[in-house]
Amino acid sequence: MANTEYAKGLEGVIAAESKICRIDGENGKLFYLGYSIEDLARNTSFEETTYLLLYGELPTPTELESFRARMRAGRDLSPAVLHMIKEFPPQSHPMELLQSVISYLSGYVEHKIQHSAYCNCRDTLHQISQIASVVAALHRFRQGLEYVPPRSDLSHGANFLYMLHGEEPDPEDGRIMDACLVLHAEHSFNASTFTARVVASTLSTCYSSVSAAIGALYGSLHGGANERVLAMVDEIGTKDNVEPWLEKALAEKRKIMGMGHRVYRAKDPRAIIIEEYLQELGKRKGNTQYYEILKELERAFRERMEEKGKPIYPNVDYFSGAVYALLGIPARLFTPVFAMGRAPGWLAHILEQRSDNRIYRPKALYVGELGKDFVPSSERKSG
Amino acid sequence: MANTEYAKGLEGVIAAESKICRIDGENGKLFYLGYSIEDLARNTSFEETTYLLLYGELPTPTELESFRARMRAGRDLSPAVLHMIKEFPPQSHPMELLQSVISYLSGYVEHKIQHSAYCNCRDTLHQISQIASVVAALHRFRQGLEYVPPRSDLSHGANFLYMLHGEEPDPEDGRIMDACLVLHAEHSFNASTFTARVVASTLSTCYSSVSAAIGALYGSLHGGANERVLAMVDEIGTKDNVEPWLEKALAEKRKIMGMGHRVYRAKDPRAIIIEEYLQELGKRKGNTQYYEILKELERAFRERMEEKGKPIYPNVDYFSGAVYALLGIPARLFTPVFAMGRAPGWLAHILEQRSDNRIYRPKALYVGELGKDFVPSSERKSG
Repeated sequence: MANTEYAKGLEGVIAAESKICRIDGENGKLFYLGYSIEDLARNTSFEETTYLLLYGELPTPTELESFRARMRAGRDLSPAVLHMIKEFPPQSHPMELLQSVISYLSGYVEHKIQHSAYCNCRDTLHQISQIASVVAALHRFRQGLEYVPPRSDLSHGANFLYMLHGEEPDPEDGRIMDACLVLHAEHSFNASTFTARVVASTLSTCYSSVSAAIGALYGSLHGGANERVLAMVDEIGTKDNVEPWLEKALAEKRKIMGMGHRVYRAKDPRAIIIEEYLQELGKRKGNTQYYEILKELERAFRERMEEKGKPIYPNVDYFSGAVYALLGIPARLFTPVFAMGRAPGWLAHILEQRSDNRIYRPKALYVGELGKDFVPSSERKSG
Repeated sequence: MANTEYAKGLEGVIAAESKICRIDGENGKLFYLGYSIEDLARNTSFEETTYLLLYGELPTPTELESFRARMRAGRDLSPAVLHMIKEFPPQSHPMELLQSVISYLSGYVEHKIQHSAYCNCRDTLHQISQIASVVAALHRFRQGLEYVPPRSDLSHGANFLYMLHGEEPDPEDGRIMDACLVLHAEHSFNASTFTARVVASTLSTCYSSVSAAIGALYGSLHGGANERVLAMVDEIGTKDNVEPWLEKALAEKRKIMGMGHRVYRAKDPRAIIIEEYLQELGKRKGNTQYYEILKELERAFRERMEEKGKPIYPNVDYFSGAVYALLGIPARLFTPVFAMGRAPGWLAHILEQRSDNRIYRPKALYVGELGKDFVPSSERKSG
């Protein structure tokens, strides 16, 4: 590249090697450490997938048992953190709180950074566990309810629903919640994962890195799409309104939320799985409207796009918001739930970054003024 | 570039255009928005330089007056934040707390993110002000002392010393502290500033972005060098011990801290300025030992490097730790003081990133396994 050439947003630029995630966009396939997302979502718990991401291989039954016990032992929140949550201003976004709490948790752990060793991500499972606890506790406090201490006999997903609602969830609800977290656990480089790696590359702690990643996920260009899909579905209202709504939306050149993905040229494999959950949940809860509207919109939109020769398929965000809504999760918590799922992926990338590290220090192309004479304050005029 | 080529740590890769900072490494010059660091350090306050970074031009007297009033009005900490500081575990690092507090502050501001508008960095000056207040408050609590509320008649640097020590600093001490913050306010892309830009590129808030940058600065490859310089000076002990110490250190291939810089091929212009402060402070405080040891080490080390034909010069970290020590700042707070100074630079880059944004999404080069058969838990054997 010539000296002044660059790709905005580093698009297409390789930032590092990675063994964690493979996305086969052409064929709509996704793999964590070589295992297909279908296999993982259908056969493993979130805790098992977390183990896979942190250790690079699926656990034996004994390994899983001890790992699970460690993760579950870290669920409960300390009084100082509960105080932070309670005092958090009522209108503010849960992601701001999450980012803050995760770096605060760092203070509870003895690090060896500023020295030769690092904090050990694999020993800090409580940060994964507590993201769920913080989200649940904040929701309860905002409803004027009490904090529900965690249970250690439930899966990560089921325990989250328990701490959120204060009652044990239907086992199928718990399983679906847990599987949704598996589906979100990892997706190669993106702004939040890249942020985690950049921060980790300074040899900062994994808490600092995960906290920073949460800050990136908070941005409206990154997390938050499923929240907007659900708002769109609410706006459409009924299956019969899909055609006229879409006609109008396309005429107004509005973006259809949850459609298309920069990597997948086929349907996002996560969307295929999560669509099943939505159908199953809808039947069980006697609320099939979300499913019907989304499927009708998918059909109608694809028809129009195929006419133009550019098929666009739903991505994972297209169905996930409706699933969460049927599980009783308010839309405001959708991005925090994304963070709950993605935390092990961030930690896996932090570990990988450290294993062959160089600090990220790209260059800026200076395009500003070359030298200005200093003018004393009294002689300055406003521009 | 071929499909699999990449520069580790993005070294040499241009990540974006920038008008904020020019580093002329060959000639040892540094400019913020076209103004030389010498002019700024000698003629402007930290508040004035902050205005320059956030508005792109130096303020008129009226503009500066109202800007300064806004910055000073944001110094005091809320009870919730004071509680967070008090409860922060005693052994943990102040940078972890700072990262947490800055994202927590975000909750006190109404953002329009997730919508079309952004939070306005120029209206969030309290986050710059409060970094200093948090650092001072933490130090006092850890000494078993009370929080000292800020004063609005002191410069940013002088007020920090006031809040730290509980008494008004000598005016010259205040001026030097303030000038040190000017010297650290901006230094183009580096891991923390790049982190701030990556997070900002998702359209997250400036709090989330600054918080993330603090996390990056915390890493031992980034902030913290001046702390290690001071430890080295303490180890050397006396001017007469410099030669034997250096001889031994070089024989053991130890790194001489605070020497060399990836960009400057001449002496870091900030080191030249800060060296004067150290000399002046040393005389006034009757403690010239730091200065003498550092100057002797600089001379002895340069002599040896020139013999090898590769001159290496001191960077800004070489003298700053000793200056801070003479101002009564404990070594544990040096990296937080760096963050206090750098905050306006981060905000300037966040503003610039937003003004012509594309989300940072580089690629990973996948080098992992291509597809593995899922093995049920009961059939797995430990590796």
